[in-house]
This record gives sequence, structure tokens and C-alpha cells, in this order.
Amino acid sequence: MPLLAIYLVSAPDRPGLVGRIGGFFFERGINIVEAANHSDSDDEGAKFLMRIVADLDGVATPRQELSAAFGTLCDELSAKWSVGYSDDVARVALLVTRETTCLYDLILRQRAGELPCIFPVIISNHAHLAPVAESFAIPFVHLPVTPETKAAQESAVLARLATEKIELVVLARYMQVLSERFLAEAPPVINIHHGFLPAFQGAKPYHQAHHRGVKLIGATAHYATRDLDQGPIIEQDVQRVSHRERPEDLVRVGRDVERVVLSRAVRAHLERRVIVCGRRTFVL
Amino acid sequence: MPLLAIYLVSAPDRPGLVGRIGGFFFERGINIVEAANHSDSDDEGAKFLMRIVADLDGVATPRQELSAAFGTLCDELSAKWSVGYSDDVARVALLVTRETTCLYDLILRQRAGELPCIFPVIISNHAHLAPVAESFAIPFVHLPVTPETKAAQESAVLARLATEKIELVVLARYMQVLSERFLAEAPPVINIHHGFLPAFQGAKPYHQAHHRGVKLIGATAHYATRDLDQGPIIEQDVQRVSHRERPEDLVRVGRDVERVVLSRAVRAHLERRVIVCGRRTFVL
Amino acid sequence: MPLLAIYLVSAPDRPGLVGRIGGFFFERGINIVEAANHSDSDDEGAKFLMRIVADLDGVATPRQELSAAFGTLCDELSAKWSVGYSDDVARVALLVTRETTCLYDLILRQRAGELPCIFPVIISNHAHLAPVAESFAIPFVHLPVTPETKAAQESAVLARLATEKIELVVLARYMQVLSERFLAEAPPVINIHHGFLPAFQGAKPYHQAHHRGVKLIGATAHYATRDLDQGPIIEQDVQRVSHRERPEDLVRVGRDVERVVLSRAVRAHLERRVIVCGRRTFVL
Amino acid sequence: MPLLAIYLVSAPDRPGLVGRIGGFFFERGINIVEAANHSDSDDEGAKFLMRIVADLDGVATPRQELSAAFGTLCDELSAKWSVGYSDDVARVALLVTRETTCLYDLILRQRAGELPCIFPVIISNHAHLAPVAESFAIPFVHLPVTPETKAAQESAVLARLATEKIELVVLARYMQVLSERFLAEAPPVINIHHGFLPAFQGAKPYHQAHHRGVKLIGATAHYATRDLDQGPIIEQDVQRVSHRERPEDLVRVGRDVERVVLSRAVRAHLERRVIVCGRRTFVL
Repeated sequence: MPLLAIYLVSAPDRPGLVGRIGGFFFERGINIVEAANHSDSDDEGAKFLMRIVADLDGVATPRQELSAAFGTLCDELSAKWSVGYSDDVARVALLVTRETTCLYDLILRQRAGELPCIFPVIISNHAHLAPVAESFAIPFVHLPVTPETKAAQESAVLARLATEKIELVVLARYMQVLSERFLAEAPPVINIHHGFLPAFQGAKPYHQAHHRGVKLIGATAHYATRDLDQGPIIEQDVQRVSHRERPEDLVRVGRDVERVVLSRAVRAHLERRVIVCGRRTFVL
Repeated sequence: MPLLAIYLVSAPDRPGLVGRIGGFFFERGINIVEAANHSDSDDEGAKFLMRIVADLDGVATPRQELSAAFGTLCDELSAKWSVGYSDDVARVALLVTRETTCLYDLILRQRAGELPCIFPVIISNHAHLAPVAESFAIPFVHLPVTPETKAAQESAVLARLATEKIELVVLARYMQVLSERFLAEAPPVINIHHGFLPAFQGAKPYHQAHHRGVKLIGATAHYATRDLDQGPIIEQDVQRVSHRERPEDLVRVGRDVERVVLSRAVRAHLERRVIVCGRRTFVL
Repeated sequence: MPLLAIYLVSAPDRPGLVGRIGGFFFERGINIVEAANHSDSDDEGAKFLMRIVADLDGVATPRQELSAAFGTLCDELSAKWSVGYSDDVARVALLVTRETTCLYDLILRQRAGELPCIFPVIISNHAHLAPVAESFAIPFVHLPVTPETKAAQESAVLARLATEKIELVVLARYMQVLSERFLAEAPPVINIHHGFLPAFQGAKPYHQAHHRGVKLIGATAHYATRDLDQGPIIEQDVQRVSHRERPEDLVRVGRDVERVVLSRAVRAHLERRVIVCGRRTFVL
Repeated sequence: MPLLAIYLVSAPDRPGLVGRIGGFFFERGINIVEAANHSDSDDEGAKFLMRIVADLDGVATPRQELSAAFGTLCDELSAKWSVGYSDDVARVALLVTRETTCLYDLILRQRAGELPCIFPVIISNHAHLAPVAESFAIPFVHLPVTPETKAAQESAVLARLATEKIELVVLARYMQVLSERFLAEAPPVINIHHGFLPAFQGAKPYHQAHHRGVKLIGATAHYATRDLDQGPIIEQDVQRVSHRERPEDLVRVGRDVERVVLSRAVRAHLERRVIVCGRRTFVL
């Protein structure tokens, strides 16, 4: 496998951006393996979004120097940017409560080489899933939470995320609402939501879905933001159901959709395909 | 093609219903070609739902006599029921405004033999689609509507439905809200709704969907009821989209889903597969 | 949960079968919770297929007596039939080689209560997956095979299946061709096939698929029969791919489709929904 | 709508291609609205593929001059390339026999503004669809064919394609095998194939599919090449079926998949998204 650098750029749109950015690599003799860009205009003006995969094999310039130069270019373009490398292995924390489906799915995909990351820690407000963590030799941190201890528990979670140098948090059915402060201090957080967005609000959404006789069950993976379930959507999917399915069957079908959607979203994030702009994502 | 009778039965559940109903046909030497039943229990109690397709070829008993006897049985079982025959051709009215996609789709499927019905009339509040109706030699009735004339226009529509002995009304993108009175007096009405239910409420749903960055576009076919878009769902489906699609592309994708969903719902109704119970449908 | 009996019946079609069979339960005061039947005619004549779910709660007649009586009825109708009970827990053997995806998927679904069965044994021609079996406390039997020992190994597998009273064998990526003798002596065997049927034949099917630029990757679950990959199909599905996916990505996508398709097929079998007729299945 | 130029480029891969090509536009002050490139390596070596959408609004350089300069660049890169403009309206010929579904679908989409093309002529070996052409005021050319007249008929078709300056031929269920000579002389030809590729070979594929009890029905749109049904695949899709569907139902479902797949393939071609390399397509 060659050594790759993956750049994500978003900027106010204007002529010449592909040329300027492409030229940056050309001048340095660096091959662009894959690139995609998209110009989007809505009420908030015209945006330019680009993903570049560059082959660093045989490139003499040190990464830091390359990044500094790229940063200078991006400053000129008023662009936001980030870069990652194929020999980086992202450090991802899994937050769980009691449900196993998404947890197993992510671990097994990581073990199968489908997710370019490691899981240095699983954090839970329950002890229930400790044996699963143990069977995969992943450290498990049990941090119970009550309304009274919520702030302290979140601080403890944040401390652990910092200690472990976590770059992404995945809420793999973590049944706690995260505070605004937590979200402000934590690395990016991906959540999996049962149902579509917009969706049945409130308790027992699958019972509501059953009561309305829906024919499809959906799930939505999104970045967690202050507004609950209003974060930028990364991925969605559905599965067909019929009147035969009882509410408990809808829960099972929902679990199946959730894990597929969550793992696709996590992979897209880790492959550095996702750019967030306001309330939307661009998956390049 | 053999002559078939299709019965739909819904009753309070209790032991022996399949045997009693199956026995009815067995005693008369009538073959059941296909049957499906389902028992469902929710907050409103246990319901029994059944669809029977009986082969009437070579059956001496006249239909009316058979129906009378079946009605007596159903009375004993406190069952609601209906029957239709494969040599009946349902009379279906199409209500449209300006959009062609669903209209063409339904007519072409009917012409291809996919929908067991005829369209004796197309009714519209605009003149726009008259040429389409004409190209298929279907009578087109233009009944414009304003807030002031709404009641009178609905009466005119109802009168035409009665004259034409219409058994099913399909709102193939009819951009008018129907009054409670209309729905009470009209035959069953199937509507196609852009988007999922629950869905983005209010104006410009595809712009809202775009603004939220959804990854799937859906459509829902349902029976029209007093509560707008709250009628029993017959069919739903989705199609995948990405950030590449602009709001106008989402409209196009939405049209594609709508026509497929609407035609499946109409076919299910015409094949007598749909039983409505409260706010749910059972598609047997 | 009520105690249910699930009957599967296939017979030469003739009038009165639903009534005769429904009547059998009615006479005994047994409620039919769900039933579906289908009449099918092809070159081999008209077949009648039926699935009945009967509620045995409060039924005094012993199961054996009920079965004897049902058998007598089926003899009269020249019908083949079988019955299972909701308090039976099917004993299923998993045969594997080295791949984990389908193995984990089936075990996790069984643990989540999605599959009404237990796995008394995992049998493999490699030792590779022993730790997985151990982590779930399932006995693991390592029976290596070479061309010379194939017959003896198959005998050992058959012996173990017999000892464990196995009712269904699932080939969860078991990379061995089973002999005609094995298939004749074993209980029903479900296999998962990468790709559609018909599909790319021969080695490296995903490389062939990539070379042809296919846009969908499929999988097929079927009963194993003498003719390799020609057994009756239980379930199929696909997932979308693009030119971005390299052959190794197609393998990953294929694994995802395989496990979903295999678990659906196993569930359908265990819920007693599948009737095999010749080279086709009916999933009622 | 701005005036856009869409370039497709394929070249032997080497460092700097994105920069060289992006730089071409940058030097001329031309904005790249959207771009995608992909590097692919297989047995035949490493290929570079790129699609660029450039905004020509306010660009002073005449198109011809721009193309000449771009051609010079591509020569240096040993690249194959083509360009189209958003104010070009592609001239597309539809070849049909008797089936209406794909024909109507394409015409209606074109009328709805979904396909950037016009249909100057419909050519058929039967007179059957003349009324459809007439209802949309599209010239209809009836060129019957027999084994004896095949060569002459193909010459007549080619002559008409030339007269009409046709840029793309769509076989919308044209039930004739085209000769190698025809394909060599005609513009690109897109065909719709019932079923997957690989698929049931020979006559009555839906009967074969029914006999095998398949659970999905597919369709494949591909460029027509000398080897029948071996041309580069542009798009594929499937729809779910069950044992309930008879062969004639499979034909209906197949029609539905075919028209969706064909129209997506035609749109992708017309939007200049498709690059053919050997037996594969890249849909950028």
C-alpha cells in the first residue's frame, strides 16, 4: 500500500480553486491519486468543497513542511482544511450502554480491516457490556451516571478521551443525552438515530411506527450537535417491513439498519470523505 | 384466465375463523386458489384479517346467492367483508392538476394490462393536462376551483364521480385539499405524498430536505382521510440521493419514487389486497 | 408467548384443500393464528402449498395424537407435511472454515433472540475459528480434511451431526464441496453463495465482477444439493458498488450481503416458512 | 443557468495530471464547478480518468480555440478526451420494436427536462409504435427487416442516423441483433438487457428465472459491442419478487426495472459522466 495523504478543503467558491490546489501538488511533483470537488450554492452563498488523495511515496518534503505550505495556500484562499495520512490509525472511542449490535459490528469490521482505526477504549454508563470488551481485549471503562452526577461523569469521560488521545467518538447506542459543554470539548461525535429524520418524536418510536403502519424502517447516522438529532446527516438507509412485523420485530429490523448505517458513516468519516458545512454534510 | 372471486374479511379474532370460512367454500365445492390471513392484536383488541381468492369456474351457484350466504356467515362472525370478481373492471377516476408523471404512469400501466381497471374520466382544476387525456381518448373534465367556489366545485366533482359510477379516486398529484364532506361522500381516495410520513411539514419540502442534507428521498401512498396526510399508509419507498443533487434534482427523484409508490398502491387496492383497520393497512 | 404449532403442507392441487385443512382445526376448537396458501402450476402440474400457525394454548389433545390425525388427513390428500412447535428449539450445526463474518452474525442474532435455535456445535476443517467458538462457549470440533481423507472426514461430520441430533446444517462459508452421500445422509443444508445465480463461474468471482465493471454485488442462500450451486434458492440480495471499489472492496461488500442473506434464509427456515418443490422454494 | 463545458479525459496515469489539467483552466481564469478523477490500475496498467465541469460564463476565449489548446495539452499527456457544452442539445435516436415502456419513459423524461437531449427520430422495424411517436410529434421511420434485407435495412438506418446528425442511439427494446459493421459505423449505442449480466442465456429468460425461483429480477444497461451483451455496463438494478409472481409478472417487474435502468444510463451518458475503458465503464 502506498503512503497517502488525504486533504479536505472547504472555501468560499471562486474561479481557479481546482487549478490553484492541483497546481500546489504538481509543482512539488506529487501525484494526485483521487480527487473530487463540488461547488454548492444555497442561501448562505457559494461554497467550494474538495477532497484530494495524494501519493507521498518518494516525496522528499517532510509532512510538516508540506502542511505548512498547504496551510499558507489555504489562508490565501480563506479555506478551512485538514489532512490525514494512510499510516495514521485513528483512535476511536466507543460509547455504549446495553445494546450489543452496533458494538459488535464496529469491532468485527475493525478486526476485518474494514475500518482504518483502533478502539483504545469502550466507555459505558453500565457494566453490562464489559464481557464483550474483554473478549476482544479492549479496555472497558464503567462510568455510571445519575441526574446528580451527570456533569461529573461527563468530565470523567472527557478526561479519558483526552488521556487516550481520542480523535472520534462513536455513540454505538449510548442512551444518554450529551451536554452542550461535552460536545464543545469532545472530538467529533457520531450518533446513530433509530428512524428517519424527521422522525417519530418521543418515546417508543417503533411502537408509533407500528401504530401508523409504516412500510419502511429507517436509521440515520449524524454528527451530534447541541440540538438533539439535528446534527448533520452522514448516512441514512431503510429496510422494508409489513403488517406481519410486530413492534418487537420492528426493533430487530431497526437494529439491522442502524448497524449498517452507523458503520458506513464511521467508515466515511475515517476515510476522510465527509465535510460538514452548516447543517449538511458532503460525502466526497 | 379462470373466473375468480376475491373476498376480504376483517373480524374480531376468535378460534375457528379459518375453518369456518374455509369450510364455507369447501361445502360448496369451490376451490380456494390463494388465501392469506393474519391475526393482529394491539391496544384496540385482537383482529382477524383474511383474503381469499376462490375459483368460480364451474360453480353453479349464482354470485348473488353466494354473496348472500357469505354475508350470513360474516354476520354470525361479526365480520366486515367485501367481494370483487376478476371479470369486474374497476372504474377509477384520476384527479390531477398540472404534473404529468403519475398521470402517464397510471395510464400506461393500465394500457399494458398491469392495472385491472379503466379510467372513465380525468378531472382537473386546470386545463393543462387536457391534451394528455385526449391523446389516450379519456374524457377530461376541467373544474376550476377558487376559495369561493370550492364547495361548489367539490359538488361538481362528486356528481361526476357518481355519474361515472367511480369506485376509486386516485389523486395523481391533485394539488387541492379535499374537504371532510367530500371524503365522506366519495368512494375510497388514494393520495400520493412526497416524502415520508412523518415528513418535513409545510411548504417546499424538497428544499427543506436539501437544507438538512438528507440521503434518501421518499414517497408515501395512503388513503386520504380528514386529517391531512394522516390516512392509512398503503405503500412507501425511497431513493438514494447525495449532496450532488440540488433541490430541483430532489424534485425529479421524488417524482420517480412517487409514481412507483402510487402505482403499487393502486395495484394493491385493485387486486383487493388492502384491508384498512383504524390508521393501519394490512396488505395481504 | 402462546404455544404455537406450525404446519407446512404441499399437495397436488384440488378443490377444497383450504376448507378440509381449516376444518381439521375448527372441529378441534383450535385457533389458526396465521395461515397462507398458494396454488402454483407449472410444467410439473398444479401444486398446493400451505403454512398454518395454530394456537395450542388450552388444547387438550396431546401433540402426538393431533399429529397422527393430521397425518391421516394428509394421506387422504396425498399431501407431504411437517410440523414444528414454538417450544421446540432447533438444533443447528455451523460448518465454517476461516471467515468470521457469517459465523459471528449468526451467533449474535441467536443470542439477541432473533433465531429460534441453539448451536450445539461448530465444525470446521481448520482450527482458525476455535477462539470465536470458545468466546461464546460453543463446542468446536476440528475435523481437518485432505483429498485422501475426505470420505472419512465427512463420516466424522455426519456422526457428530447425529450425536448432536442436528436438524439443520448451515454452511457459514465452509470452503469444501460436500459429497452426494453426505447430502443424502445429512439433515437439510443451507449454503451461502457469493454472487447471483446464475453468476460468474469459477475462481475469483469478485475479480471477474470487477473486470466486467458490475454495478451491483449479490449473494444467494440456497439449499445445498448434488448439483453445486443449483439448489433451491431461499433468499437473494444485492448491494450497489461503483468503479471506486477495487476487487478487495467487492469482497468486503460481498461479505456484507452474504451475512444478511444467509441470516434471513436461516430465519425463514427456522420459522418454518420455506417449502421446497423441485428446484424452487416457496417462502410463505 | 451558466454556460458549462464538460470535459472527459482518460490517460495513462502519472504524477501531476490533476495539477496540469487544473492549471490549464486556472491560467485562463476559468472556474471549475465540479471535478472528479480516479486512478485505476488493473492488468492493463494504471489509468487516470477525469471529468471536469468548467464555467464558461464571461470567458472570452472562443470554444474552438480553447479546445485546440486543451487538445494540445492532452496530446502531451497521451490522453484521450472529449468535450461537450451545456447549450449543446444532444441528438438522440430511439430504436424500438413493439414495446412501449422504455419508449414512453424516455420521451416523458425528456419532456420533463430530465434528459438534456432531443429525439429527432424514432426508428422501428415494426409500424406498431407509430401512433406513440405521432402523439409526441416525433418523426417515425418504419424500416422493416428480414434476414435477407438485414444489411440493406441497417444501411438505411445508418443513413438516417447520419442525416439526422445523431450522436447517440438508444435501443429502447429494439429486438434486432446489430451487425459488427453497424456498430462500427454508428455513434455510441446504449442497449437495455433484461436480467443481470451474467444472466440466464437463451430464450425466455423470465421463464428460466421463474423455474429457478429467483428472488430478484434485474436489468443491465450497457454499450452495445460486437459481443452481444458483453459491452461495458453503465447501470444495473434489481427489484424483489417472490413465488407469488408468475412468469408474466416477472416480465412486468422486469419492464419496470429496465426502464429505470435505461433512463439512468442515458442520463449519465448525456451528462457526460461515463468513460469507457476496455470492458468497464467509470461513471464519474
